Amino acid sequence: MVETVSMNGGNGPNSYTQNSKSQEEGSTRAKALLAKSIQENLEIQNNSRVFSIADLGCSVGPNTFSCVQTIMQAVQLKLKNCGPDLEEPEFHVFFNDNVTNDFNTLFKALPPERQYMAAGVPGSFHGRLFPKASMNFMHSSFALNWLAKVPKEVTQEYSSAWNKGRVSYVLSSREVMNAYAAQFSSDIEAFFSARSMELAGDGLLVVIMPCRAEGTLPSESTILDVLECL
Amino acid sequence: MVETVSMNGGNGPNSYTQNSKSQEEGSTRAKALLAKSIQENLEIQNNSRVFSIADLGCSVGPNTFSCVQTIMQAVQLKLKNCGPDLEEPEFHVFFNDNVTNDFNTLFKALPPERQYMAAGVPGSFHGRLFPKASMNFMHSSFALNWLAKVPKEVTQEYSSAWNKGRVSYVLSSREVMNAYAAQFSSDIEAFFSARSMELAGDGLLVVIMPCRAEGTLPSESTILDVLECL
Repeated sequence: MVETVSMNGGNGPNSYTQNSKSQEEGSTRAKALLAKSIQENLEIQNNSRVFSIADLGCSVGPNTFSCVQTIMQAVQLKLKNCGPDLEEPEFHVFFNDNVTNDFNTLFKALPPERQYMAAGVPGSFHGRLFPKASMNFMHSSFALNWLAKVPKEVTQEYSSAWNKGRVSYVLSSREVMNAYAAQFSSDIEAFFSARSMELAGDGLLVVIMPCRAEGTLPSESTILDVLECL
Repeated sequence: MVETVSMNGGNGPNSYTQNSKSQEEGSTRAKALLAKSIQENLEIQNNSRVFSIADLGCSVGPNTFSCVQTIMQAVQLKLKNCGPDLEEPEFHVFFNDNVTNDFNTLFKALPPERQYMAAGVPGSFHGRLFPKASMNFMHSSFALNWLAKVPKEVTQEYSSAWNKGRVSYVLSSREVMNAYAAQFSSDIEAFFSARSMELAGDGLLVVIMPCRAEGTLPSESTILDVLECL
């Protein structure tokens, strides 16, 4: 069984709840793009009674609730634009994260006045989580950058890709970078493969994640530079 | 906001996980009835791609997993009896309990080899939990006997239904019994009202709960007699 790690649970000083400002800032900056993407790309079916939304890698809040709110408002606006006679569907929102995530804290933090039915889904988003063609909108914010596992070869002393105990590849050899790149490639393929099964024919997937500009070196990225201090 | 209580979480010596043998025995005895009820009453649609199951008041396991297994096997048998060409749907199982339930323990105890997609649903089953007409099979075992709240009048010294600090009505006045009966009546109406919205047209609801035989007194029930010691 693959060991999974999650953000710190609870509401204490070391919790994700109290230490996710940079993710919040990123999400806030991406909100306009998220809303625009829904206006431009989402197909609304006339006969949909339920609109299912998933947040993949939701952690324990509060950012996930704010994202869901943005998505719902954008979908409601799109519905309004499609015609005043279109009956509004009920919203079913699925909050997903690894099984070790603190779902108890997440559930207790659910907005009491929410206009949707909520469910928590434990499990890796690198595998199947939902029935086929059941999701109308899937979203993942600042989560897909986490790998499913550390590539084995970077932990093995005899390997040419040994990373000497470091947790970042910013100042590491080409072999180490390639090992991480191969793991990411395998992870992202598994992610898209699962989502392609789960998304409804007219569904939409939006992924927000930190990236480097094409052609730049890892050491030129601020985020990776910070990680090198660990 | 109504204060909710739940079974003890975790896996420790006082947890529900370690102290739910009598519920397990009750569920085991009811298994044959559960399977029979599915064979006789469940209508299987030819074009269903997903079969949604909910366990209402699931607590932290392990009994809920055993119930789900029984339900799935009975549905699969029913499908087989309906014809060998019927494509088996994917099973989507929703585990529901109050928001204070220990979902973290529940999720970690999910059977690793399960043949269904799992989700946790926090909230009172006396209200709406799922979108309209979205559930094919709903089940509640040893849970509906718990009231949504203590009737206010049994806690008020000046009320004729004051229960003098006791948590049972076995040896209490007629007024106390009536107050509990009225609360149960209101709760069960709310429960059925919500389920009637959530069940698919061909869906099935099975409730298993301890009861007294018609015409007997509370003091003649073994379970209520035990509670009187509290």
